[in-house]
Amino acid sequence: MNTRIRFFAILLVAAGIPVLAEEGMWTFDNPPVKQLQDKYKFTPTPQWLDHVRLSSVRFNDGGSGSFVSANGLVITNHHVAFGQIQKLSTPQKNYVQDGFRTRNQAEELKCPDLELNVLVSMGNVTARVQGAVKPGMTEKQALDARRAESSKIQKESQDATKLRSDIVSLYSGGEYWLYRYKKYTDVRLVFAPEQQSAFFGGDPDNFTFPRYDLDFALVRAYENGRPAQIKDYLRFNPKGAADGELIFVSGHPGSTSREWTVAQLENERDVTLPTLLGKYSRLLASLRKYAARGPEQARQAADEIFSYENTVKAYTGQLKGLDKGLFDKKTREESDLRAKVAANAEWRRDFGPAWDAVAASTKKQAELYKQRQFWTISSPSGLARMARQLVVYAAELKKPDAERIGGYHEAELEELKFYLLSSAPIYPEFEEMLLAHSLQDSLDQLGPNDPFVRAVLEGKSPADVASQAIKGSKLTDVAFRKSLVEGGEAAITASTDPLIALARRVEPFFREHRKAWEENVESGLATAGEKIAKARFAIYGKSAYPDATFTLRLTYGTVQGYPMNGTKAPSKTTFYGLYDRSASFDNKPPFNLMPRLAERKDKIDLSTPLNFVATLDIIGGNSGSPVINRNGEFVGIIFDGNIESLVGDFVYSEESNRAVAVHSAAINEVLRKVYDAGALADELMGK
Amino acid sequence: MNTRIRFFAILLVAAGIPVLAEEGMWTFDNPPVKQLQDKYKFTPTPQWLDHVRLSSVRFNDGGSGSFVSANGLVITNHHVAFGQIQKLSTPQKNYVQDGFRTRNQAEELKCPDLELNVLVSMGNVTARVQGAVKPGMTEKQALDARRAESSKIQKESQDATKLRSDIVSLYSGGEYWLYRYKKYTDVRLVFAPEQQSAFFGGDPDNFTFPRYDLDFALVRAYENGRPAQIKDYLRFNPKGAADGELIFVSGHPGSTSREWTVAQLENERDVTLPTLLGKYSRLLASLRKYAARGPEQARQAADEIFSYENTVKAYTGQLKGLDKGLFDKKTREESDLRAKVAANAEWRRDFGPAWDAVAASTKKQAELYKQRQFWTISSPSGLARMARQLVVYAAELKKPDAERIGGYHEAELEELKFYLLSSAPIYPEFEEMLLAHSLQDSLDQLGPNDPFVRAVLEGKSPADVASQAIKGSKLTDVAFRKSLVEGGEAAITASTDPLIALARRVEPFFREHRKAWEENVESGLATAGEKIAKARFAIYGKSAYPDATFTLRLTYGTVQGYPMNGTKAPSKTTFYGLYDRSASFDNKPPFNLMPRLAERKDKIDLSTPLNFVATLDIIGGNSGSPVINRNGEFVGIIFDGNIESLVGDFVYSEESNRAVAVHSAAINEVLRKVYDAGALADELMGK
Repeated sequence: MNTRIRFFAILLVAAGIPVLAEEGMWTFDNPPVKQLQDKYKFTPTPQWLDHVRLSSVRFNDGGSGSFVSANGLVITNHHVAFGQIQKLSTPQKNYVQDGFRTRNQAEELKCPDLELNVLVSMGNVTARVQGAVKPGMTEKQALDARRAESSKIQKESQDATKLRSDIVSLYSGGEYWLYRYKKYTDVRLVFAPEQQSAFFGGDPDNFTFPRYDLDFALVRAYENGRPAQIKDYLRFNPKGAADGELIFVSGHPGSTSREWTVAQLENERDVTLPTLLGKYSRLLASLRKYAARGPEQARQAADEIFSYENTVKAYTGQLKGLDKGLFDKKTREESDLRAKVAANAEWRRDFGPAWDAVAASTKKQAELYKQRQFWTISSPSGLARMARQLVVYAAELKKPDAERIGGYHEAELEELKFYLLSSAPIYPEFEEMLLAHSLQDSLDQLGPNDPFVRAVLEGKSPADVASQAIKGSKLTDVAFRKSLVEGGEAAITASTDPLIALARRVEPFFREHRKAWEENVESGLATAGEKIAKARFAIYGKSAYPDATFTLRLTYGTVQGYPMNGTKAPSKTTFYGLYDRSASFDNKPPFNLMPRLAERKDKIDLSTPLNFVATLDIIGGNSGSPVINRNGEFVGIIFDGNIESLVGDFVYSEESNRAVAVHSAAINEVLRKVYDAGALADELMGK
Repeated sequence: MNTRIRFFAILLVAAGIPVLAEEGMWTFDNPPVKQLQDKYKFTPTPQWLDHVRLSSVRFNDGGSGSFVSANGLVITNHHVAFGQIQKLSTPQKNYVQDGFRTRNQAEELKCPDLELNVLVSMGNVTARVQGAVKPGMTEKQALDARRAESSKIQKESQDATKLRSDIVSLYSGGEYWLYRYKKYTDVRLVFAPEQQSAFFGGDPDNFTFPRYDLDFALVRAYENGRPAQIKDYLRFNPKGAADGELIFVSGHPGSTSREWTVAQLENERDVTLPTLLGKYSRLLASLRKYAARGPEQARQAADEIFSYENTVKAYTGQLKGLDKGLFDKKTREESDLRAKVAANAEWRRDFGPAWDAVAASTKKQAELYKQRQFWTISSPSGLARMARQLVVYAAELKKPDAERIGGYHEAELEELKFYLLSSAPIYPEFEEMLLAHSLQDSLDQLGPNDPFVRAVLEGKSPADVASQAIKGSKLTDVAFRKSLVEGGEAAITASTDPLIALARRVEPFFREHRKAWEENVESGLATAGEKIAKARFAIYGKSAYPDATFTLRLTYGTVQGYPMNGTKAPSKTTFYGLYDRSASFDNKPPFNLMPRLAERKDKIDLSTPLNFVATLDIIGGNSGSPVINRNGEFVGIIFDGNIESLVGDFVYSEESNRAVAVHSAAINEVLRKVYDAGALADELMGK
C-alpha cells in the first residue's frame, strides 16, 4: 500500500481520553449517541449509522470519499484524485491543468492504481491478539506474537470471505479489531475541474479560511466492466447546511497523536518535526528546480510539489502549535492521570512504569531518527521504492507468513502487486532527479563514512549513481516488473538491473535499521502504550475515541464561524469572495481565475455559498469525506482545516479549530453553469 | 479643547531613536529626505513639502483631513466627522443612520463646534524654553518655569500674528517648537454616507483587514460666510496608488510611546491598560444599557459607543502586544543605550540617573492612577465636564497668565469658549446616565470612605446626586453658560445651579490631585525625559523622529499586503469583497448592506478597489489623513490600522503593521453611482 496521507507522521502511541466539546473521531462500533442526544436531541439509529458507513469510501492512496449515486458515482476532493489525474495525463492532454470532463460513460478513464474500500464489517479480536502474548515474553517477543496472530486472523478472514481484511489497532493496542472491506479496483475518472480552480489560492491559502476552492472530483466504481450498482449512497442536497446546523463527517482520518505522553510531544517538537521539515524543505527545493527545467517537467512534478508544500505547511503549523500553552495543558493532564494511577496499588504496579518506559523508547527513537530517514530507503523516487519492495518481497516470500514483515503477509500480497504492477506512467528524468536528491541528501546528512552511504555510493557521486541506476533500469516496464514478481528470489538474485542491484546493496541496512527500530523503539512503545490505554479504560471507561488510524470514523459538529485575526470569520464564503480575492491580487497566480470562471462570471449567482466551515474534528486523510446532515444527505465535502486546526494532531479546540468544506450548492452551480456538466449534476440530484 | 484621539493614553515621555525600515512620523522641519532618496530616488522639494503641509488639516476634535478643492472642500473620515454629524442630527433627521447629502452649497450645515487648523509656520524655541530653567531649581520649579515661558511665547505670538500659537514639546522635551495655525471655525457638513456603510463590519472588523468601509465624509471650510478660497489643496486622483507604489501620509498622529523606558512599559501593562480597560468596559455596559432603552437613546449614544468600543479594542490589542518578545527587544535596546551612556564620564554624570528617576516617578504614577480616574472629574458626561471647566476657569482667570493651569492661558481662552458655548445638542437623560455611571463607578472603585466620594455624594446615592444635578441644571442652555463665562468668579460663586454646585464641591480634589501628580509624576518624568532625549541626541544625533504629539507629521511607505493568519492579505479589497462579506453573514448586522448599496449593486463596477493597505507608520489621530503620491495627489484616505498595528504605540513592525485606507477610486465610484453626488465628485476631480 502506498498510502499518501500527506501530513501526518507515523502513529506510535495513542489512547482514549475523556472527551469534552464537539471533539472526537468515533469508531462506528462506539458512536457518540449520548452526546448527540444530550446536545442535539438527535439519535442516530443503527440503520442511519449503517447507511452512512456503507456510503463512505476509503481512497487507498490517501483520502476519503462517498457514493453519491446508485450507479457507483463517488465524490472526493480534487487533491485526493490529483495523483490519478496526473497519472492519466500526458504532455498532450494535461487534465491537471485543463480539468477533465466527459460527455458519456464511455469517456470515463480507468485510474491506473486506485483502490477504493468500503467497510462492510467490524469485529473485536482484542482477546485473541492480546492473548497471543504469554507471560515471560520479552517486549520484542510480545510484539512478534501479536503481529503473527494478527496476520493469521487476516489470512483466515480473507480466505473465508474474499474480503480485504485488516487488523486495526485502536487505543494504542488497548483494542484490536478485524475490519473487512469490499474493494473496488476498477475506478474511472468522471470529472475534475482545473487544478487551479480546485486549489485557488495555492500554498498561501492552503490550510486557511476564508477560502474559495472547487476542491472536488468525481470517479465511478465499476464491477465487471459496468458501473457498480450501489444500494447505500448519499442523496445530494444542493441546499447545503445552514449556519448552526448539526452535521456529520464520515471519513478516514489518517493519524492523530492526542494521547502521546509529554516526552513524545517534546521529541516531536525537538527531533521529529525539525528533522522532517529540513528533509522536505530540501526536497522541495530540488522539485522546484526540476519544475523550472520546462513545462513538461513542471507537469511531472506538480502533484509532488503540491504534496510536499502541503506537508511543510502542516508541519510548520504543528511545530508552532507545540507551544508553552499546549505543554502546560498536556503536562497537567498527564500528571492528573498518573496521580490517579498512583492512588491505586494495582494500577500503580501494572501501569505506573509505562510513562518512563515511553520516555526511554522515545529517547532511542530520537537517536535512530536521522538514520531512519535514509537507511529505510524511503526515497521520494517511486521507482526506487518499487525496486526495494521487489527485493524485500522476494526474500519475505520464503518465510512463514507469521514471520514476515508488515506489507508482505499473504493477505497483503494482492494489494502489493496491484501497486507494483500499476500502469501509471513513470518519467525516468524525474525519477533520476529524485533518487539523486535523496542520495545527495544522505551524503550531506550522514556524512561520507556512514556505512549506508559507503555501500550505496561505492565511491561515486550521488548524481552518477542515480543516473546509472535509473538510465539502465528496465523497471519502468510493467512487464519486466511482472517477471520479477513472478520469478521470485531467483529472478531478483539473478537480475542485473542496476536499480535492483542498488536495492540489493541497501537491503541489509533496511533490515538492520528495522530490527533496531523494532527492538528499541516499537516494542517498548507498544507495551507501554497498551498499559496507558488500559489505565485510561480503568479510570475513564470507554468514554473516549481512539486516535486516528486511517480507518472509518464518525465526527459531528455545527456549521460555525470563529474568531479570526481580530475579527470574525463567517461560516461560509460566496462566489463574490472568489472574484474579490482574485481581483485583490490583480489576478496573479496563485489567485488567477481559470478562463471558464472568468468568462462565466455573469452566469453564476455570485451569492451562492462556495466553501464553509464547521466544528468538525477532522485531520489529514479526511480529505474528500462527505459532510452529512441529520437526514443522511450529502451537503458538502471536507477538503481542509483552517490554520488554527493544524495543532489538531495533538489537541482539539472547539473555539477555533474548523474543518473547511466545499458547499454542495457550489458543486451544483459550477457543474451546470461553468462546466456544462448538467447530466452529471442531474445524476447527483437523482434526476 | 476637547481632543478626542480615541485610543491613546496621555503622552508622558518620549525620545528619538535610531530608525530602520519604513517607520517614522517625521516633523516637517526634519523630513526623511535621505531615506527617500536612498530607497526610492525621490527628493521631496521644499515646495512639495510646503504644499503637502498647507493642504493638511487638523480636526481639533481628534483627527486629520485635507483640502481637496479650491473652494474649501475638506475630506476626512466619517468616524472623525461622526461627532459633528451626530450633533447635527435630530430624532427626525438622523444623518448618522441615513447619511447626509446636499444638492447645493446652501444646504451645507454648519458644524456646532468644529475647529480646523492648518499649520502655517514652525519655529524652534528650545533655547528660550529650556533657558527658563535656572540652576538650583527643584524639578517642580523647573516644570513651572518651562510652562510659564511657553505660555508667554504663545501669547506674544498670538498677539502679534492673530494665529493660533501652540508650544509643542518634541523628543520628550528635547526640543520645543512654536507651531502657528490658521484656524477655521465655520465648517459645514457637505456629505456623509450612512454610518453603516462607513463602518461596515462594525466593532468586529474594526482594526482589521481585509476591509470594506466607505469611511469618508466631506466638510467645507468657510470664511466670512463664503467657501474659503484655498491655494494649497490636493488634486484628487481617482486611479489611486498601485501595488508597491511609494506613498505618503501627512496627518496628525495623536501619541505614541515608542521611547518609553522598560519601567514605563511595565506600568502600562500592569497598571494603566488594565485600569482603563476596566473603566471603559464598565462604561460601555452602561452605554449599551442606555441604548437599549429605545431608538432615540440608541441614537444619542451611538458615537460614544463607537468611540469606547474602539478604545477597548485598541487597548486590548496593545495589552496583548506588550508580550515577552516586545519586552525582550525593549530591554535589549535600553541596555544598549545605557551602556553607551555609562561609557562616557560626562554622559554618565548628566544622563545616567535618568532611567531610575523615570522608574521612581512611574511607581508614584501607579499609586495615584486609580484616584486620577475620578478626582480629576473626567466624567464621560460632557455637561459635567463643562461645569468643571467653568468653575476652574473663574478661579484661573484671576491669576497671572504664567501661573494658570494648562487650557486656561490667555492664548487658549478663545478655544475654551468655543467649546463651552457650542450649540451642540445636549440630552439631559443621557448626561444624567453618564454622570450617575461615573459617580457609581467612583463609589465602587474608591469605596465609600474616599474623601472625594464623600464630598461628591454627601451621603446620597449616585443616581440621586446625578438626577438632582442634571435635572435642576440650566447648563444645557448656551445663554446661561455664556452668562457664567462673562460673569466670572462672582457669577460662579453665586450660582445656585446644582451642577455648578457639584463642580465646586469637587474642585478642591481636582486641584489636590493635580498638584500631587505634577509634583510626584510629571516633574520627575519631564526632567528625566529631557535627559534621556539629550543622551539620544548625543549618541545618535537627530536621525530620528519624535514620538507623536497630535502635530503634523509626514510618513512614507508602499502599498503592500502582508502575511496574515497563515496566508497573505492582499494590498487591496474590491466591492466584490463587500458583497461577499455581507452575504457570508447572511446580511446580518454589523455586516448588513444599506439599501442604496444593495439596490445599486449592478451599477457598481465590482472590481473597483475599495480599501487598501500600506506600510505607513500611523496611529490614532491620523484618521482622515490623506494618502498622497509622489505628485502630491490625493490617492486615498487613512481610516484605520490592522490588528497587527495596535502594538504600534510601542514599536513599529514593517512586516505586518499596516495602515488601512479608503481607495480614491471607491470614493469616486460611490459618489457618482450610489449617492447621486456627481457634482461633488466633479468638484473633487477639479471639473
